[in-house]
Amino acid sequence: MNESIPLSPETTIGFLGAGQLARMSAVAAFRLGIRVAAYSGANDGRQPLEQMTPYQFSGSFNDEEALVRFAKKCDVVTLENEFLDGELLARVEVASGTPIYPSPSSFRMLESKWLEKETFRKAGIPVTTYQKIVDPADLDFFAREQGYPFVLKSSKGGYDGYGNRKVDGPKNHHPAFEALGGYRGHELIAEAFIPFEKELAVQVVRNHRGTAVYPCCETIQVDHICKTVIAPAPIDTDIRDRACELAVAAIEAVDGTGIFAFEFFMTSDGHLLLNESAPRPHNSGHYTIEGCVASQFENHIRAVLGLPPGSTAMCRPVAVMENLLGTHDRPACVEGTEQLWSEKHAFLHIYGKETSRIGRKMGHLTLLGDTIFEVRQKAEQLAGGISI
Amino acid sequence: MNESIPLSPETTIGFLGAGQLARMSAVAAFRLGIRVAAYSGANDGRQPLEQMTPYQFSGSFNDEEALVRFAKKCDVVTLENEFLDGELLARVEVASGTPIYPSPSSFRMLESKWLEKETFRKAGIPVTTYQKIVDPADLDFFAREQGYPFVLKSSKGGYDGYGNRKVDGPKNHHPAFEALGGYRGHELIAEAFIPFEKELAVQVVRNHRGTAVYPCCETIQVDHICKTVIAPAPIDTDIRDRACELAVAAIEAVDGTGIFAFEFFMTSDGHLLLNESAPRPHNSGHYTIEGCVASQFENHIRAVLGLPPGSTAMCRPVAVMENLLGTHDRPACVEGTEQLWSEKHAFLHIYGKETSRIGRKMGHLTLLGDTIFEVRQKAEQLAGGISI
Repeated sequence: MNESIPLSPETTIGFLGAGQLARMSAVAAFRLGIRVAAYSGANDGRQPLEQMTPYQFSGSFNDEEALVRFAKKCDVVTLENEFLDGELLARVEVASGTPIYPSPSSFRMLESKWLEKETFRKAGIPVTTYQKIVDPADLDFFAREQGYPFVLKSSKGGYDGYGNRKVDGPKNHHPAFEALGGYRGHELIAEAFIPFEKELAVQVVRNHRGTAVYPCCETIQVDHICKTVIAPAPIDTDIRDRACELAVAAIEAVDGTGIFAFEFFMTSDGHLLLNESAPRPHNSGHYTIEGCVASQFENHIRAVLGLPPGSTAMCRPVAVMENLLGTHDRPACVEGTEQLWSEKHAFLHIYGKETSRIGRKMGHLTLLGDTIFEVRQKAEQLAGGISI
Repeated sequence: MNESIPLSPETTIGFLGAGQLARMSAVAAFRLGIRVAAYSGANDGRQPLEQMTPYQFSGSFNDEEALVRFAKKCDVVTLENEFLDGELLARVEVASGTPIYPSPSSFRMLESKWLEKETFRKAGIPVTTYQKIVDPADLDFFAREQGYPFVLKSSKGGYDGYGNRKVDGPKNHHPAFEALGGYRGHELIAEAFIPFEKELAVQVVRNHRGTAVYPCCETIQVDHICKTVIAPAPIDTDIRDRACELAVAAIEAVDGTGIFAFEFFMTSDGHLLLNESAPRPHNSGHYTIEGCVASQFENHIRAVLGLPPGSTAMCRPVAVMENLLGTHDRPACVEGTEQLWSEKHAFLHIYGKETSRIGRKMGHLTLLGDTIFEVRQKAEQLAGGISI
């Protein structure tokens, strides 16, 4: 891409996926006066983005013809999850003539956990020790080298802790290998267990016009699901700067266009290891909607349109984001927001999902302020009062 | 309304009108996870809001049955212009059982310029001297009382200077009366000509949960169309405070629910006269999207849902909004934005209108900063470089 895509009401940005990431990205596209089209998988009820556009397509994410038809109706296509086939994306891009960002070639470098580790290790970015596991005997080898515990993961398709098994000793080898589909040919990867002190994340946006990196934030997981994000991360500035440098190196390693998120383990001695990456807007960057001058969503849209990135500076000293997970299995309905409305710098985001399930990501809130302790405590209190 | 409307993905807010005001309001509704439905007049091409929702209805704004059908599909209905019939709205509200905000009774108090002046004068709010004109002889009477020049206006349906005639002397009486449809029974109103020094505007949001008033801003018109808005208005704080007090008194006078905008003339001796009002989001409040903690659009949505208003405080000392008017008669396409992208606190909004016409409101930009002189100069420069 050397030219930007015209800002015209005929210009259409297509999303593969119609969840909350596409929804929040769409708002940024609407601000620029362009159209948004959604390609969603077969599903029950309208997806978050489908509430927001008349341009809707649905089908399988493996249906090449349907994907080409969709891409032909768009000026640029982007995506909101990693569960797509990189080869297929490459063919869709060629057959439709419509650019896809992240580019299929970037995407393919991150398509599996194994490829991801290979890519970043070769680029000199520190990652956890890992090994591809094709046979239970590989686990014995990995255990001999690394000791216990270690983590066995599905190389493709895992998220929020799904597809992971902690391996504490030889007795876990077979059960873990079997549970993750090793005998059915699923690609698995073993990773050293890192007794990290904190988990950090950095969003970076990049295209041929420039690169902009957001502040390094801390992510707090509960039961493998992101609960809280604190920006900036309450750690030494040097470590934050290092995380930002690594994130920029990582997006360059895959020649990424668009917004990418990189998650790091920080060990007790301040070392950083790149743990995961996402070639798309990410939960760790939701705080940027109100917390930064240009949000991760706006910058993603700018990047894929070929426009220069906007400022990633924070608007206030501190932003804390709390995910709002489903508290009931029921038709979605938000209750207990009373305290939130009286909080000057609290911002509620609900994703429009029709059905709530316990633990499902239904929305989030962001609170801005001056000191981490205060903002975090208040944000947690506000989130705690809300049921969905 | 005593209860708030549930925040559920089934909840639908209906807009009568699908222009840029509805579009920008819809974004605020989407953030809360609710649906947006558009009722638009018959028109050529998709209207701004129609690009953003699958829930679309079209018909005449006088078609009571169609309006009732639409309202029945919504949990609350709101509007984006004044060119509706208040009696009809009242019947639609009763027949559909769906609340409409601004309420038909508030709306009817502002339905014509004459009713508006009557309402505010009786509430003790200073307005320009006015008289209903049903006969050219009334013009002679008004001229004897007020002298020349004065302004003759259509009492209903005028906007951006359309429907106004300046009357400089007796020779203008008949031509002005005729041009504005006086002989065809159009209701006309004569208003004293005010040699104002500045035009000011204030947005206020109100419902049973509370009232919140935005800072008083200055609006600069060129050829009767708003070109620039400066917030806060560069005038004495006392006068700004007085404008805010008058705006609150005005919304109370009509028992308004939702966002309202009030425009004032400020004379050279610092007196304020209420000139116009709008029971809806208003061009003078677009700066609040990035300029204030909660925008006029967010607060409108909150108000009509029965939620407490959000903070109207400014995020930075100064905000300047420049309208982007069509520079060509052509299919819309935005050019010359290059300088804008590098400006840290500049925000571009394009409305998605398919056709540009010279002078048509196609978008706006807002620039935030610290000093009015600097911000205004830069904003004007950025806007000047853009063609649509």
